[in-house]
Amino acid sequence: MRIGILGAGQLAKMMALAGQPLGCQFVFIDPAPDACAASLGEHHVLDWSDQAVLAVLKHCDRVTFDFENVDSSMLKQLAQVTMVRPSILALEASQDRLKEKSLLHQLGLPVAPYAEVSSRPELLAAVEKVGLPAVIKTRRFGYDGKGQSLVRTQEDLEATWQALGGHALIAESLVDFTHECAISAVRDERGQIRIYPLTHTLHKHGILRFALSPSSANAPFVDEAKAIVTQLIESLDYIGCLTVEFFVTHAGLVVNEIAPRVHNSAHWTIEGSACSQFENHIRAIADWPLGDTEGHGVSLMINFIGRMPSKDMLQISGLHWHDYGKVPRAGRKVGHATWQLGSFDELTEKLDDLSDFLADDEVQWLMDLIKQAG
Amino acid sequence: MRIGILGAGQLAKMMALAGQPLGCQFVFIDPAPDACAASLGEHHVLDWSDQAVLAVLKHCDRVTFDFENVDSSMLKQLAQVTMVRPSILALEASQDRLKEKSLLHQLGLPVAPYAEVSSRPELLAAVEKVGLPAVIKTRRFGYDGKGQSLVRTQEDLEATWQALGGHALIAESLVDFTHECAISAVRDERGQIRIYPLTHTLHKHGILRFALSPSSANAPFVDEAKAIVTQLIESLDYIGCLTVEFFVTHAGLVVNEIAPRVHNSAHWTIEGSACSQFENHIRAIADWPLGDTEGHGVSLMINFIGRMPSKDMLQISGLHWHDYGKVPRAGRKVGHATWQLGSFDELTEKLDDLSDFLADDEVQWLMDLIKQAG
Repeated sequence: MRIGILGAGQLAKMMALAGQPLGCQFVFIDPAPDACAASLGEHHVLDWSDQAVLAVLKHCDRVTFDFENVDSSMLKQLAQVTMVRPSILALEASQDRLKEKSLLHQLGLPVAPYAEVSSRPELLAAVEKVGLPAVIKTRRFGYDGKGQSLVRTQEDLEATWQALGGHALIAESLVDFTHECAISAVRDERGQIRIYPLTHTLHKHGILRFALSPSSANAPFVDEAKAIVTQLIESLDYIGCLTVEFFVTHAGLVVNEIAPRVHNSAHWTIEGSACSQFENHIRAIADWPLGDTEGHGVSLMINFIGRMPSKDMLQISGLHWHDYGKVPRAGRKVGHATWQLGSFDELTEKLDDLSDFLADDEVQWLMDLIKQAG
Repeated sequence: MRIGILGAGQLAKMMALAGQPLGCQFVFIDPAPDACAASLGEHHVLDWSDQAVLAVLKHCDRVTFDFENVDSSMLKQLAQVTMVRPSILALEASQDRLKEKSLLHQLGLPVAPYAEVSSRPELLAAVEKVGLPAVIKTRRFGYDGKGQSLVRTQEDLEATWQALGGHALIAESLVDFTHECAISAVRDERGQIRIYPLTHTLHKHGILRFALSPSSANAPFVDEAKAIVTQLIESLDYIGCLTVEFFVTHAGLVVNEIAPRVHNSAHWTIEGSACSQFENHIRAIADWPLGDTEGHGVSLMINFIGRMPSKDMLQISGLHWHDYGKVPRAGRKVGHATWQLGSFDELTEKLDDLSDFLADDEVQWLMDLIKQAG
């Protein structure tokens, strides 16, 4: 089984690490010569829309991707010569926030009020429709909080237009949430679905910092989250792993966004479940039986942003290390750790062991998470 | 951290899979162009004793090996230009069955009666000393039962001499054992030692077929096994993972052999313990804190000999797949699976699920193991 991946970042790297024991070989397309998955297979330094990609990947049994801003016209050409998983339909929906919201709305799933914005007058009308505060986002190419602007008052509108006006936009009502969570599911060729536990997530400045599973704060929402991800994954005739991110409000769950790929909020499944999201994505696209998605114990995933901490952190019992091998840079996800414990009580008791290796703001965010979850 | 490995077989592959998330890069030396670890790093197609190895590996921070029949003179040269782990002393002891037995004997550890054989008359004298039945083995380059001959009567001696007489030999008394077991330990630069649970092993025709941990049949021997591996690993000032294989007799443990490397009997630690033997070997040689070696639940490791079974086997809940990516060939270890379960009772209840994917003789051997262990 030869698998081509568009993108050779950390998600591709973790897919390859999971796929190697299954007997898979990997071919990566990434324009960055130092892309971090490169050493785990054959790396072609090509732009994703380069026509040479076709000649390289047509010899793969399957093609998948590790980020959603793939050129969908290239995927359509690839789908003529090999099997592309998941479907281009799911990818296109997730590439455009307006299409994504429309899809969710059509399925009757809970989303925040939204409106299309393609001109300065439309911005005003949209904000009137969705109310203030609102978040103005580029419809395409946003990630980790990039391409977004918060509008609290009418006075913020001009600055927002100056910053984002050159792009197709969407206005969304700012959701007043108590916390955030995410759920990941995997579906195979025969329509079998396995769902991972609902995960408590904490973002700061638009970047995921911590993920915790399970969280008692999420217990009331598990059935609804499972129903939503099931409806979505079936409606898209989806094959592979998909994640839905939610806001948890006093009125219940609101879908924030969907990711048609393996996702940061489920990295903890490498150690916290029998079959990780990465392995199940490979199993699903390769048409092999899916693995168990139940969680065991308590898993806390900690993202490392900008640089890796000292290796002394490995002395923490039950801590699993994931250095992506990326050059350190402010704001860049360079790695993560998953701390695997027997119970939430054990986590709170041992929290000081972890705090020694985190920055002050990170410790504060972790305390916020523990407070939300407990 | 750049790690050079002499050998690029499945042990090197699993070391690389464990070391990648720790941020390590790998350089493999293996004369086989299709060596199975090759796709996980930089592969140099060189014989292990080729002087070009020195030029390649001097740029590595550490050098280790995935098999014990490495040319120790090459390792001595490498030790002049980089750090070789574990020590050449430990390697040399394990390369020669006579040296190994002498070392164990000097340490006061329990070994079967043995005698050196370098001539036809010495063979007769050795068999008189150790008694019949005896096993005649080549002192060097034996593995998986190769280079061994069983002598039950005086009449077998001539055939044995014809087969093995060209080599330096050792005669060992055939040990009458109830079952076999193995223990693996890891030691770091500062002398910290972590020990994995004692593992029940079952060999057929000299090849390991199953490993089970824990096994109640081993409970009475845990303390002694831990004491033996501790004494050995300390006496060798050893850094990295080491395995001791035992015969369990009515009189207690008898050391069969030692392996100065990661070992097949501890493959189950990938899923069955928090930090696998592969990860701990890397942590130890890189001078990073060691990880937890406790086992959780029950782990049954099944070796795949000759060819991989159908991927349908992945439908077994809790089964973890390890395809080494090797060309199928009779008698060759091409992969393994580890079945991770909650308890021994659960294992015996679900055994039929597994049997569907095993050959008749394998099912019988598994039943033998379960009977021994229960």
